[in-house]
Amino acid sequence: MSLHEEILKMADAAVAASRALAKLSARRKNTILEAMANELDAKRADIKAANAKDMEAGKAAGLSAPLLDRLLLDDKRIDGMIKGVRAIVALKDPVGEKISKWIRPNGLEILKVRVPIGVIAIIFESRPNVTADSAVLCFKTGNAVILRGGKEAMNSNKAIADAMMAGGKKKGLPDNAIQVVGTTDREAIREIVQMEGRVDLAIPRGGEGLIRAVTENARIPVIKHYKGVCHAYVDASANFDMALAIIENAKCQRPGVCNAIEKVLVHEKIAQDFLPKMAAQLAAKKVELRGDDASRAIVSTMKPATEADWFEEYLDLILTVKAVPNVDAAIAHINHYGSHHSDCIIAEDESVARDFTEQVDSATVYVNASTRFTDGGEFGMGAEIGISTDKLHARGPMGLEELTTYKFVIHGTGQVRS
Amino acid sequence: MSLHEEILKMADAAVAASRALAKLSARRKNTILEAMANELDAKRADIKAANAKDMEAGKAAGLSAPLLDRLLLDDKRIDGMIKGVRAIVALKDPVGEKISKWIRPNGLEILKVRVPIGVIAIIFESRPNVTADSAVLCFKTGNAVILRGGKEAMNSNKAIADAMMAGGKKKGLPDNAIQVVGTTDREAIREIVQMEGRVDLAIPRGGEGLIRAVTENARIPVIKHYKGVCHAYVDASANFDMALAIIENAKCQRPGVCNAIEKVLVHEKIAQDFLPKMAAQLAAKKVELRGDDASRAIVSTMKPATEADWFEEYLDLILTVKAVPNVDAAIAHINHYGSHHSDCIIAEDESVARDFTEQVDSATVYVNASTRFTDGGEFGMGAEIGISTDKLHARGPMGLEELTTYKFVIHGTGQVRS
Repeated sequence: MSLHEEILKMADAAVAASRALAKLSARRKNTILEAMANELDAKRADIKAANAKDMEAGKAAGLSAPLLDRLLLDDKRIDGMIKGVRAIVALKDPVGEKISKWIRPNGLEILKVRVPIGVIAIIFESRPNVTADSAVLCFKTGNAVILRGGKEAMNSNKAIADAMMAGGKKKGLPDNAIQVVGTTDREAIREIVQMEGRVDLAIPRGGEGLIRAVTENARIPVIKHYKGVCHAYVDASANFDMALAIIENAKCQRPGVCNAIEKVLVHEKIAQDFLPKMAAQLAAKKVELRGDDASRAIVSTMKPATEADWFEEYLDLILTVKAVPNVDAAIAHINHYGSHHSDCIIAEDESVARDFTEQVDSATVYVNASTRFTDGGEFGMGAEIGISTDKLHARGPMGLEELTTYKFVIHGTGQVRS
Repeated sequence: MSLHEEILKMADAAVAASRALAKLSARRKNTILEAMANELDAKRADIKAANAKDMEAGKAAGLSAPLLDRLLLDDKRIDGMIKGVRAIVALKDPVGEKISKWIRPNGLEILKVRVPIGVIAIIFESRPNVTADSAVLCFKTGNAVILRGGKEAMNSNKAIADAMMAGGKKKGLPDNAIQVVGTTDREAIREIVQMEGRVDLAIPRGGEGLIRAVTENARIPVIKHYKGVCHAYVDASANFDMALAIIENAKCQRPGVCNAIEKVLVHEKIAQDFLPKMAAQLAAKKVELRGDDASRAIVSTMKPATEADWFEEYLDLILTVKAVPNVDAAIAHINHYGSHHSDCIIAEDESVARDFTEQVDSATVYVNASTRFTDGGEFGMGAEIGISTDKLHARGPMGLEELTTYKFVIHGTGQVRS
């Protein structure tokens, strides 16, 4: 069987599974999820054995220590995965929700109702627990899922998916509801994202290279969970203590994530007062500062910022600083250099804050709060499959609702169009 | 300037326009729309002169009579265009709508608010009035638009867009809010749909070839307004008179449109009684019937249906008929051969109707009504940019709301993440 035929067969099986999934009640889906969690627990030894194979191959291939750590599945991580599955049980099933309903003058009753999307492909990199996370989010929303993880985690991914399918089947999980692509051939990604009419959506979860590979080849919709070049703008009206606390938190609390800030813009009127305070506070946290000429004239220890710095997501204790003449300049900078993820303003002047929230073209825009809150859990969504930096269909944290679409169901009494 | 540079320049100009458009109030946008309508009226002679050039070139190029008719702009059609612009004034502006709002335990106030998408490319074929329609729908929702019409209508499209821009500018329409691609080079489409990060959405409006050209090259989101292979399923519990009236309406009232039915599926228990009545009624309307073996055994005048017939959108007075053993077989047939557009069941048995509406995977699913109602106007949306056969972002008739997205605006009092 060629790679194309193999993926086509999986896609057809996923379409068939999606038809069966769409018929399951919320109660039935929860029973299946419980069974999946139980089986992950029961198959712990198998999962660890499969993971040991991946770890061994990873070491032989010279994977770095952080990559090996991401790959590792120990009892604690398996416990976390099981807990994750059970947490989904508690969330409300969005499928079947009546979004709106109206009656036309001719008596037609139009109902807009939430339904599963159909078949979703999740394309991800090394962490094997993404297998369980993605599979349960897709399953809870009645979608069939095709998982294509990194080749380093292939054995672990398959063991997790096998356990979930085996557990689920005891309670009526349809065949092929969760499938793992069995080949490590990178061409498989191209095949998957060209399955127009069969695969309804691709969600790449990983670095820039992976996202580009998916986007460039896709003939199906893709929702990108892209980098976060996030900004804090400190307005002339800012409360300095608040600004310092937010910047420290947004930069340092967890610098390696997409909702950490990478740049600070400061109103030039307060730069002279504010920047030395900020530099002192961040020096204590070992943050490297880079700055434009105006900022460096105030804090001479800053390294000079290059044009490339403004676009870069460091994911590290580095922060680049610029003085701006007003909020309009801050907005223009953020819209041009940012990644439309999360940006915040620290300001007491409400009209300045309103300009910022209205005109910054990002998924989440904060007034007087840290960008680190961009997260499904922090938003109260319960779970997320990622944070969309796209504008279509879903923006910002994507939870269960964002894994659904809608259809119109219309009841008549024989109406015809005149 | 190369084609790539030309399109890049347009895209950058559109991004700049989109920033300015996002700031316009609903009242201001309506004032601008009125000015556009007035200018279309004032520039009537220019538009007709430009159209005359296109008509002449079209005749010289040997365009068919129906194509020339679609191309023609006379006073009546210009009146229609002007009326269309004014009708949009009356519709509610969705931008700025508070979709939902909640407060987190830590006091963060999360607001989900409706915003413009940004820059939308509309890629269409010969009818020049699409220029005005698309431009006003995008403008009302605060989006910059790049229009790429068919080369046959290039002069007409430009004259219409010029008039709208000239009128709008008198009342503050931002520069480059409406742009027409000036080249007839087909490569321009490829350039437009690869403007990742600048063009947010492409909507192709036209035949299968155009949609394929867009989808195959796109690196940006595309919403397809694709063909309608629509079905009527006549259940064993159907009211025959109602079924006959709906089938006649859905097939004959306007056979050349996407929401007309192309296939009838009949429960085998009633086929013997129902099909001769249907054949007689449709014969009077000059409908050609094609059928499977079981149907042809009942109505011998039907031509035999081929496998290709089940996938085909005739857009003509042709109807293909099949007998099915039950509603499940009808659902499976529709999901496999249909285009996920509009399908209806005629049934008195509510549990059968529920199976049908729940399991048919189409944008609009009808019980006891004609599929011809799938239309923004008939749904009460006031206007539509098309009917999406995609599942992501928008499904079925797309009105103003579907030309928007959302962002999260979060107000805090200094909250940081722990």
